[in-house]
Amino acid sequence: MTACNQAIIDRMQSSVPLIPQLGAHLVAAGGKRLRPLLTLASARLCGYGEKEEERRHIGLAACVEFIHTATLLHDDVVDESTLRRGMASANALFGNKASVLVGDFLFARSFQLMTADGSLEVMAILSAASATIAEGEVLQMSTQNDLSTPIERYLEVIHGKTAALFAAACRVGAVVAGHNREAELALEQYGTSLGMAFQLVDDALDYAADQQVLGKTVGDDFREGKITLPVLAAYEQGTEEERQFWKRVIEDNEQTEADLSHALEIIARRDAIRITIERAREYVGQAVEALACFPESELKNLLRETVLYTVERAR
Amino acid sequence: MTACNQAIIDRMQSSVPLIPQLGAHLVAAGGKRLRPLLTLASARLCGYGEKEEERRHIGLAACVEFIHTATLLHDDVVDESTLRRGMASANALFGNKASVLVGDFLFARSFQLMTADGSLEVMAILSAASATIAEGEVLQMSTQNDLSTPIERYLEVIHGKTAALFAAACRVGAVVAGHNREAELALEQYGTSLGMAFQLVDDALDYAADQQVLGKTVGDDFREGKITLPVLAAYEQGTEEERQFWKRVIEDNEQTEADLSHALEIIARRDAIRITIERAREYVGQAVEALACFPESELKNLLRETVLYTVERAR
Repeated sequence: MTACNQAIIDRMQSSVPLIPQLGAHLVAAGGKRLRPLLTLASARLCGYGEKEEERRHIGLAACVEFIHTATLLHDDVVDESTLRRGMASANALFGNKASVLVGDFLFARSFQLMTADGSLEVMAILSAASATIAEGEVLQMSTQNDLSTPIERYLEVIHGKTAALFAAACRVGAVVAGHNREAELALEQYGTSLGMAFQLVDDALDYAADQQVLGKTVGDDFREGKITLPVLAAYEQGTEEERQFWKRVIEDNEQTEADLSHALEIIARRDAIRITIERAREYVGQAVEALACFPESELKNLLRETVLYTVERAR
Repeated sequence: MTACNQAIIDRMQSSVPLIPQLGAHLVAAGGKRLRPLLTLASARLCGYGEKEEERRHIGLAACVEFIHTATLLHDDVVDESTLRRGMASANALFGNKASVLVGDFLFARSFQLMTADGSLEVMAILSAASATIAEGEVLQMSTQNDLSTPIERYLEVIHGKTAALFAAACRVGAVVAGHNREAELALEQYGTSLGMAFQLVDDALDYAADQQVLGKTVGDDFREGKITLPVLAAYEQGTEEERQFWKRVIEDNEQTEADLSHALEIIARRDAIRITIERAREYVGQAVEALACFPESELKNLLRETVLYTVERAR
């Protein structure tokens, strides 16, 4: 992971000063680096990366993080959020303009790194994931403010915007290891399920978490009229009066100061956080199950614990 | 070119309806399709594409157009322009959000197409060009409102934001043809010089053209405080009074209704359009010269005429 962090810093270099500046801001903001960790761990689980000369997974983990960072930068522009990873978001500090362009740079740089690595299979996986992320984000946009969004559509959105890259990150690790097809598909399934659980919990936390702990503004999704499972569940279970409330604040986007705390109350009353976490737990089960084909090892434990941690942070 | 247009439409498809919708808008807006044309013509000049089964250049020309369209979409967001190619820009119709995300989708799709094509060399060229474009745009951002920008810096900006993709579009054609290194470098040089001339003329037209003819708002660059050669030249040649004017409108970005026509007057008085077009002509000469290593042919004529047309449209 240290080598991967170094690769991230090295490959962000550019003769245009603003790029490494904004890059340094993002690196300082840190974040969990969960996606590159998945690439590294998947490769190791498949027996790659123990020898000194086996370093491809490190560069590709950096690629994965670049794609993720690019989508964050673009997401910040889109969502007008001001906090990201507990620090002022890049667009609040550098402007929308810089966020869009540096995101583009990181995306392009990521494909340069993949080209240097030279595996067409890896490129196919990561370019497909990148397209799917964009589709997921566009789909999310079209569900915004729409309380009639079916839960299946919501699941499709989080599959696109989150789970696809988790899945690709894992699968790339197996591909680099030159492992068998079974391992590849198992790790892809693991990544998909982990990503779904991760996003469900994230969406739950947006109506539950303590901002200091999470480094995220509670109520961001609410203010944007984003359609997430806590809202869909509360709406579905709601009284007529509650439904009128949701229609006003989410569909008509007419919100006053007091509305967020009222929303949190209703969500608690309708048990919508628990319903969301329950759904996340199903994916947790699937993720753990996907690892069955691998023999027990410390790494397998790490991957299992990563999944459990995903839901634990919701407590 | 018909086959390439069809490929562009086909590959823009997605299960998320907004993507082909916005895509259809862009296709309808048309544009010159200059960049994919360069890929097609370069491949043909190198003897590729005459046989029925030689179709790789068509898909790669679509890739080039996707990258270009993605940067346009992101540029529209950034510049808050409301007209693009004579029609309402995508962001004015669909919102910034959709423009950023559909741009990302097209960029990712472009790399999927390249992966399917399978040439690492092509991918290296186009991913490097994509990174250079982003760097050029960031550099342009940092020169904005800055009248002390040296002309060399301005040339670096237009090299990045425009000439790099022209060069890559041409070079990819030669690579697909499997042609010799000399032809590859010659076509790359041709593309670079053509791109420089093209952007210089574009920057001149922003202070000269008739909006109906050009499908572009005159004074866009002026209103944004963009640093282009017409302004730099007029500033350099200007009286103290004129310099104060430029400082107010460009550096301090304090503009009133009458300022654009006053700017156009000064630019005419200081011969700044002619100076810009002169500079473009130097690149025109270089572009034509770069073709010297190819035997005379209709295609070579077409490529030569493309360069001459670039400057002719400024009349």
